[in-house]
Amino acid sequence: MSATDYFAAFPTIAYEGPETDNELAYRFYDKNRKVLGKTMEEHLRFAVCMWHTFCWPGSDVFGAGTFDRPWQQHADAAEAAAMKRETALGFVRKLDLPFYCFHDVDVMEPATDVASYRRHFATAVDHLEALQDETGRKLLWGTANLFSDPRYAGGAATSPDPEIYAWAALQVRSALEATHRLGGANYVLWGGREGYETLTNTDLKRELDNFGRFLNLVVEHKHRIGFTGTILIEPKPHEPTKHQYDFDTATVYGFLKRYGLEDEVRVNIEANHATLSGHTFEHEIATAAAFGIFGSIDANRGDHQNGWDTDQFPNSVEEMTLAMLEIVRAGGFTTGGFNFDAKVRRQSVDAEDLLHGHIGGVDVVGAALLNAERIIADGRIDAFKKERYAGWDGELGRMIHREGTSLADIADHAVAADLNPRHRSGKQERLENLVNRFV
Amino acid sequence: MSATDYFAAFPTIAYEGPETDNELAYRFYDKNRKVLGKTMEEHLRFAVCMWHTFCWPGSDVFGAGTFDRPWQQHADAAEAAAMKRETALGFVRKLDLPFYCFHDVDVMEPATDVASYRRHFATAVDHLEALQDETGRKLLWGTANLFSDPRYAGGAATSPDPEIYAWAALQVRSALEATHRLGGANYVLWGGREGYETLTNTDLKRELDNFGRFLNLVVEHKHRIGFTGTILIEPKPHEPTKHQYDFDTATVYGFLKRYGLEDEVRVNIEANHATLSGHTFEHEIATAAAFGIFGSIDANRGDHQNGWDTDQFPNSVEEMTLAMLEIVRAGGFTTGGFNFDAKVRRQSVDAEDLLHGHIGGVDVVGAALLNAERIIADGRIDAFKKERYAGWDGELGRMIHREGTSLADIADHAVAADLNPRHRSGKQERLENLVNRFV
Amino acid sequence: MSATDYFAAFPTIAYEGPETDNELAYRFYDKNRKVLGKTMEEHLRFAVCMWHTFCWPGSDVFGAGTFDRPWQQHADAAEAAAMKRETALGFVRKLDLPFYCFHDVDVMEPATDVASYRRHFATAVDHLEALQDETGRKLLWGTANLFSDPRYAGGAATSPDPEIYAWAALQVRSALEATHRLGGANYVLWGGREGYETLTNTDLKRELDNFGRFLNLVVEHKHRIGFTGTILIEPKPHEPTKHQYDFDTATVYGFLKRYGLEDEVRVNIEANHATLSGHTFEHEIATAAAFGIFGSIDANRGDHQNGWDTDQFPNSVEEMTLAMLEIVRAGGFTTGGFNFDAKVRRQSVDAEDLLHGHIGGVDVVGAALLNAERIIADGRIDAFKKERYAGWDGELGRMIHREGTSLADIADHAVAADLNPRHRSGKQERLENLVNRFV
Amino acid sequence: MSATDYFAAFPTIAYEGPETDNELAYRFYDKNRKVLGKTMEEHLRFAVCMWHTFCWPGSDVFGAGTFDRPWQQHADAAEAAAMKRETALGFVRKLDLPFYCFHDVDVMEPATDVASYRRHFATAVDHLEALQDETGRKLLWGTANLFSDPRYAGGAATSPDPEIYAWAALQVRSALEATHRLGGANYVLWGGREGYETLTNTDLKRELDNFGRFLNLVVEHKHRIGFTGTILIEPKPHEPTKHQYDFDTATVYGFLKRYGLEDEVRVNIEANHATLSGHTFEHEIATAAAFGIFGSIDANRGDHQNGWDTDQFPNSVEEMTLAMLEIVRAGGFTTGGFNFDAKVRRQSVDAEDLLHGHIGGVDVVGAALLNAERIIADGRIDAFKKERYAGWDGELGRMIHREGTSLADIADHAVAADLNPRHRSGKQERLENLVNRFV
Repeated sequence: MSATDYFAAFPTIAYEGPETDNELAYRFYDKNRKVLGKTMEEHLRFAVCMWHTFCWPGSDVFGAGTFDRPWQQHADAAEAAAMKRETALGFVRKLDLPFYCFHDVDVMEPATDVASYRRHFATAVDHLEALQDETGRKLLWGTANLFSDPRYAGGAATSPDPEIYAWAALQVRSALEATHRLGGANYVLWGGREGYETLTNTDLKRELDNFGRFLNLVVEHKHRIGFTGTILIEPKPHEPTKHQYDFDTATVYGFLKRYGLEDEVRVNIEANHATLSGHTFEHEIATAAAFGIFGSIDANRGDHQNGWDTDQFPNSVEEMTLAMLEIVRAGGFTTGGFNFDAKVRRQSVDAEDLLHGHIGGVDVVGAALLNAERIIADGRIDAFKKERYAGWDGELGRMIHREGTSLADIADHAVAADLNPRHRSGKQERLENLVNRFV
Repeated sequence: MSATDYFAAFPTIAYEGPETDNELAYRFYDKNRKVLGKTMEEHLRFAVCMWHTFCWPGSDVFGAGTFDRPWQQHADAAEAAAMKRETALGFVRKLDLPFYCFHDVDVMEPATDVASYRRHFATAVDHLEALQDETGRKLLWGTANLFSDPRYAGGAATSPDPEIYAWAALQVRSALEATHRLGGANYVLWGGREGYETLTNTDLKRELDNFGRFLNLVVEHKHRIGFTGTILIEPKPHEPTKHQYDFDTATVYGFLKRYGLEDEVRVNIEANHATLSGHTFEHEIATAAAFGIFGSIDANRGDHQNGWDTDQFPNSVEEMTLAMLEIVRAGGFTTGGFNFDAKVRRQSVDAEDLLHGHIGGVDVVGAALLNAERIIADGRIDAFKKERYAGWDGELGRMIHREGTSLADIADHAVAADLNPRHRSGKQERLENLVNRFV
Repeated sequence: MSATDYFAAFPTIAYEGPETDNELAYRFYDKNRKVLGKTMEEHLRFAVCMWHTFCWPGSDVFGAGTFDRPWQQHADAAEAAAMKRETALGFVRKLDLPFYCFHDVDVMEPATDVASYRRHFATAVDHLEALQDETGRKLLWGTANLFSDPRYAGGAATSPDPEIYAWAALQVRSALEATHRLGGANYVLWGGREGYETLTNTDLKRELDNFGRFLNLVVEHKHRIGFTGTILIEPKPHEPTKHQYDFDTATVYGFLKRYGLEDEVRVNIEANHATLSGHTFEHEIATAAAFGIFGSIDANRGDHQNGWDTDQFPNSVEEMTLAMLEIVRAGGFTTGGFNFDAKVRRQSVDAEDLLHGHIGGVDVVGAALLNAERIIADGRIDAFKKERYAGWDGELGRMIHREGTSLADIADHAVAADLNPRHRSGKQERLENLVNRFV
Repeated sequence: MSATDYFAAFPTIAYEGPETDNELAYRFYDKNRKVLGKTMEEHLRFAVCMWHTFCWPGSDVFGAGTFDRPWQQHADAAEAAAMKRETALGFVRKLDLPFYCFHDVDVMEPATDVASYRRHFATAVDHLEALQDETGRKLLWGTANLFSDPRYAGGAATSPDPEIYAWAALQVRSALEATHRLGGANYVLWGGREGYETLTNTDLKRELDNFGRFLNLVVEHKHRIGFTGTILIEPKPHEPTKHQYDFDTATVYGFLKRYGLEDEVRVNIEANHATLSGHTFEHEIATAAAFGIFGSIDANRGDHQNGWDTDQFPNSVEEMTLAMLEIVRAGGFTTGGFNFDAKVRRQSVDAEDLLHGHIGGVDVVGAALLNAERIIADGRIDAFKKERYAGWDGELGRMIHREGTSLADIADHAVAADLNPRHRSGKQERLENLVNRFV
């Protein structure tokens, strides 16, 4: 059996509408439908990830791989890698989605040293370029895996060893240049090992400074090679590291400000990372938008009862609608998109399960966009919010923000006017009911 | 019975050494003992808080107050407030600790409007000034309570209503000026209501901008009145608010950078807030130190099994030692200190329980300082850490940080030198054993 | 203004269908609609609770009450209690829901001793009986508040003091007899203080035995007075107590087995308590059903980012549908029902907000029932589940369960048949998509 | 290099007292010291586990193995397994600890079918028997791994497939018989896959009944073969499974009662599992003791900021002392002991790190035992507890428990005596200070 045959039994997935009985069709994602001025395809910019869907063998901390993918069984490493690349791009085409994403090591024959790393990765990139042409798929973003190799156990850009830092530089340079060549829209850095296990052996300030230096070098290299995509950092609070420096969006913002990068770098927000860090998914998006660093989305969900990154496919239209509202209000994506950083469950061992996972996820996001459109069209929620803050557009609100106004001026006004303001209802129950009306 | 009689049965608490059988004595806190170049009193700068210890009636969400403090039973509100102030300063003296802390509303007869607020607070401040002289106690910090009054249900500096913002300005101005007059070493802002319940009714960006404006006005007023203490923000992730803007130290740092305040404002780190935000206490201190914004400590602990702010007195010497190491490494306090933002349990209804709580807390912190001194004197942990990062002081480390070095230069070096670095052990178990040796 | 006037501006709430623009109407709860053989009213048996909706003043741990309910302002305690009772029953009628629930202290003038407790509660029960007749409302369950009074700070049925235990017996006897007289369908015990703060002062085994004794006494009294309703225990893991003995449904089951009560007592499952204990809401229902102790529901939801009991009105149709499926599969309620143990947010200070909260909650539950009906009618999920376990109805499955079969027999069969079974896909993504299809 | 050479550089670990500077010596664990009537060795019954210490390669979900153990690199699987067994028993001897623990698959060459499973395991058991003789080490407990093989992805004793159940029966029979032959003191069942991922595909009741049947078969087989050790279940709330049936000790107790096994099976309590389930370690021990099912301990600790099983070596003497108090109060171990179900960090790649981990863990437990002895000798805590419950030994307490007393009798007494009891202080702060005095 050849690699592309793995999904041979399944047709290309198409939109068939909410009432279809076909479980292998889109019910809400109608790629050509115009929503809020753009097609759904243009809005949502879906991507399939290489790692969970084509590299992960179905293992977990307590058990071996359960999957039986032909490219994972193949005896020849180079051919296995080629088969994986081919299957992956074919799968994205079968789903009729526009993008894919990868780490360097996802797509290549494993390397043992500098030379084989460069050789094997170059082979992979050549092949991906051809496959992109052949399948019409595009690269949403590329990245370098700076966490799986044992050398990165103590960090990459925050390693105590500058030689390991140099290896990370080699990988990022290679992956960034590959992303540029493949027409990638963004380049992502996720610092899974950039953090610490214990402060007893960690110089936190030195590591942060090394990390800031690294990111500055990456940004400079981007400009040097003429890459016009966006550099993205993906926040996560912990796991595998006990504590990761890129804890959440607000932390990343402070980091970018500290190292002078807030106009150069944006965030790639993952739903499950948001909830692990004690925030809602929509909070992270709203925060990034307020700070002007909203970039892209890693779509998945966590399990509210389990305290690790379960990376399940999104399946809550309710939660996704709240997130989508923030995305739409932030003006939507520019270079970013919805990448499915999601994996089927370890028990879901069939080829079909990969289709169900992606189709369900696409439809949850698609339905959320349609809901957001209806909520905005209805206007009641936005009108309430506008009225709630109306005082800030009035005389006192303007006075407070006027240059030259002092704390004493404002306090004096409270005294002079004998202010005795009362709280007015925030109408949370009504607004939640209104959202439910459109979900 | 007069207010000061409440603790009449108890002697002034003194140091008696580790072997004393007296449960109402300090076993580790020897205020005149020299540790790392300062007396323990100068190092630790302990403060007793007014709110938990003198205002809280022993209520919780599911039950009424259990305490029977005379000043809480008193029929006359003005006399009750005076009795409370007198008892509080007397209690601090009885503990032989140098400082206390208060919110405006903790120390005053309740107010119903602008005029009574100003009048009652002025009375309180006059009295406190006299009591400070009489008892020899000092003010570690003052603050304004912008969260208990119903008007602040939707925020104070982030209220949708500018009149409420103006009321907050009045309170902060008053409390800041009172702190200045009373010789306070710091002024604190804790934004318990500065956050949101739901994004459906919240303009997050507008609220952040209003909050940044507020903090700038406070800093400007500080300089205007000549207050030379430190302005401190106290991070907390949530509770009472679903999501608070001052989530943790890194978030506050980003906020300060955004509004140009990183050289003007520092953080007051509370142990239980740290753990609620998903960090260790020592992480928050190390982060603040790395960013140059470490200010002061609210000493308490949370319950690792309960997800709210339990504000228990510190009782883990092990955890406190790790925190103390970071404080000492950061150079110790300048204007800050250890304020016991802690309360006895609701079941602990006796006067004696307040003594046990504070004595236990003081000794945990005192023992931690002695442990930190021994760990530093031993030197093995610091030596390991120094050796671990030695590469960064070597040739490659310096090259990476040299101006003009590019990502390509570093990657080229990895290729040219055919680098194949391996991870070296972080020795976490050994280092943890070493810490245990001194606890 | 009289008490009943508080909701005078609002009409009785009626079903108007999904498309209505009226925010004060039911969109899904059509009380006379037949679903799975019963009307929706018979299925869901909605109840309004007295405590959150009529007693709570809008306070939280950090702030005073924000509400302005006339009966909470009334100077005369007896009249205030009467006004509250009258308003409450009128409100339930206005919502056109069949039931209400109460604690003894919710409905009565506060008591200071045994005599006033009995007198004031008797007055309240007389009035409630009249109001039930007048409004046509019924009592889903009554209970005694054994947690708010300071005397219960250390427990009621698990108090170290037998006199406090005796007081609890007095209250439970009174509330149980009142429930019986008022025709209540169930009697509930929630042990908010039945647990411990620290094992250093707690005899866990003794407390459990005292608690088991108490519950046996209650069951015996129920039979003695001829009450035919169900005795229910409401599990909760903690809060206010650090650790509550009735942690979750499985824990309660073990407790009932230990004290011989598993055929006498069932559980009242609260959604937010389920999630606080590390389970999903549907898990708790499924577990209770498996053990034969499913009784009733306290409908609300928690906040997945906040670690305490937020008691929000349910607003996730997705989550409620999964719970409803388990209820329907368990055969639905017998004496139980859906009680809204939910409160509007502290900021929601208007009378209208109470309507929005309840209407939204009713419709979420109503929609979930309609979804469950459709999922069951579709049949694909049940068919998959049946097929998945089919082996257990086959030869080997029957052999395993046959009396006389030993472990060795089964192992010998594995050897003899050279078994080499492989895992088959659990189809989780497909099944989740199928659920979403009907939500 | 031969396997036993791996630790050749290190001497046998001996007790040298608290003041030793030798990091590879015990400071508190003095195996011959008499404590509370037994030697420390007899009390603590330490065991080293095979899996984390000799099988785990240093991998995690995000990265490959970092370790370089010779037996993990060996090309011949049979010889690798032999080398591992030899190294392991030698390591236990080098630590001078009495016991070890294993899963079937830990100690054997991997199997592919029934025949090779039986053959390879038999070889391993023969070798272990010889090694036990040679090294003087004993088996604390054996167990079968019913979670790593892909066939168990959907459960073993709760598998939907009875053939998989039969395979589990084969493994458990083999491991139980091996444990019997090797003189093991206990046999453990940990049901890592006995639970569910989603109720949409799970028949919870059927799975529980199959699980109860399995456990009954195991108990019957134990008696049949004359094994006199204890059968233990190890509770864990989740991970790898989303929800595990053996959630915690109270849940296991209910399960045992349901299937008639409460006198046959006890619990093996793991510290990190306790905290993951929302309890303290000492709570689980106290609960098991109260129910009469306390068996053995898996000693480790979790990370309070990370929501998964980190399995770190214990290093908090404070926490361990609280747990040890409950063990001592429960009468100590009979067949159980302290097994280190703990692993060095992934970064700790040196042979030496395994020694530091175990030595630190042994000393934490040893110090805790000495502390418990001192607390009991001091007597103040026990005296307070006794006094606190004294009322239950008085007249009213006895009346409440007397046969024939009814709820009405007790309530009548409250009325007749006009009881108005008040809460008395639980003295939590004082008691916590007292504990700290001995830590």
